[in-house]
Amino acid sequence: MMRIALIGTGNLAIHLVHALTKCSTTELVQWVGRKSTPPKPSLNIPYYTEYQQHIEADLCLIAISDDAISTVAQQLKNIDVLVAHTAGAVSVDELNPIKRKGVFYPLQSFKESITVNWSTIPICIETTNIEDIEILEKLASQLSESVYQINENQRLQLHTAAVFANNFCNHLIRVSQNITAKAALPFSILQPLIRETFERSFSNLATTLQTGPAKRNDAITQQKHLSILQKEDAELYRILSQSIFNTHNT
Amino acid sequence: MMRIALIGTGNLAIHLVHALTKCSTTELVQWVGRKSTPPKPSLNIPYYTEYQQHIEADLCLIAISDDAISTVAQQLKNIDVLVAHTAGAVSVDELNPIKRKGVFYPLQSFKESITVNWSTIPICIETTNIEDIEILEKLASQLSESVYQINENQRLQLHTAAVFANNFCNHLIRVSQNITAKAALPFSILQPLIRETFERSFSNLATTLQTGPAKRNDAITQQKHLSILQKEDAELYRILSQSIFNTHNT
Repeated sequence: MMRIALIGTGNLAIHLVHALTKCSTTELVQWVGRKSTPPKPSLNIPYYTEYQQHIEADLCLIAISDDAISTVAQQLKNIDVLVAHTAGAVSVDELNPIKRKGVFYPLQSFKESITVNWSTIPICIETTNIEDIEILEKLASQLSESVYQINENQRLQLHTAAVFANNFCNHLIRVSQNITAKAALPFSILQPLIRETFERSFSNLATTLQTGPAKRNDAITQQKHLSILQKEDAELYRILSQSIFNTHNT
Repeated sequence: MMRIALIGTGNLAIHLVHALTKCSTTELVQWVGRKSTPPKPSLNIPYYTEYQQHIEADLCLIAISDDAISTVAQQLKNIDVLVAHTAGAVSVDELNPIKRKGVFYPLQSFKESITVNWSTIPICIETTNIEDIEILEKLASQLSESVYQINENQRLQLHTAAVFANNFCNHLIRVSQNITAKAALPFSILQPLIRETFERSFSNLATTLQTGPAKRNDAITQQKHLSILQKEDAELYRILSQSIFNTHNT
């Protein structure tokens, strides 16, 4: 049984609590947060507002906001447990002066209200002591079928790629949803196109899949599109179209 | 049996030829293109370089580039067959002076090398004579399970929404693919995140799904991301991040 302490009460922390509670080979021995009352009291997890050193743990996971990681690391400096943060764009060195450091980064966008299937979520792991990697490897493979041991630079690049694929695409889908709503059309009409867009990218280079007025520099169609867009969306349209044109015509 | 003439030899035309050939209730009576030799000779479709008025047809479909539609319409001005173009952002009036005009717009991105499942492709139809809608309705419902009778303004809005959801998202996925390749990581590591991104948008408003450093104005993370991006991708990153911030913080 792997005994785990978890620090944090945000979206990812809540999802980790659910996953670790369900997993038969892990035990959540303490859950630490700033809130005075425990989140999810029905789960009956031992909850504290400060880390309890006297409770035996094999691993301490920190799932808090990026900018709080180094402060929390200072408070944990004397513990001899492996401590891993869960952030994509934070160096493992931010856990200094902790002795046994690591990263346990699940590559997914977590919203408390949206359930996730942990078995499909890639988990990227890293440790500063080579012998500690086994602990993260064991936990990751109990939660997920895809575990990657990657270095800090790869993790930052992956996090950046994820911003383009998730944050930015979601922002563009928001524009599509606004347009269909304004046109009194169900957004479901775009589902087959959207599904094809990303499913095709899994087996083709997106650069070979590009179509549309921007690629072929079709100014007449672009003007028609711009005529129905609000100012800020029109600005996005212009810049993305220019970028597509530059990519495919220079 | 619906007798169909098809003008055009591009991506969409080729896909239409395959679909109409397979359909048991349609007959492709002539295929018209500028090329002197017939594309797909193995399909044995009567091929001409000019429209043949003496061949009986119930419908003439025009699947050519947007800017050629009005020129071809001039050449067809004396025919008494319903003529429908297949473009998302072109007015049915571009078919003037043809008497019986319509639009048959399949909402999908067509690449000759990528097979499509017509039954899931939404087909948007419109005719200037109300009695002609039945012809397009009949054909559309033989090819697809989703048929929408929409007006010109709705079609332009839909086409614009499709540019954001398909053309622009594909361009951003291209950036993600470049980053993972540079990091020596398989692009498949991003698949679960990408699939979630789009699938979630089918049952939620994208504005409620937004996460990431741009939304929470996390300048430190944004600087790290910018440090590994090439100039043009960094520019896209800045503008999309600013747009996300403006959307969620004003």
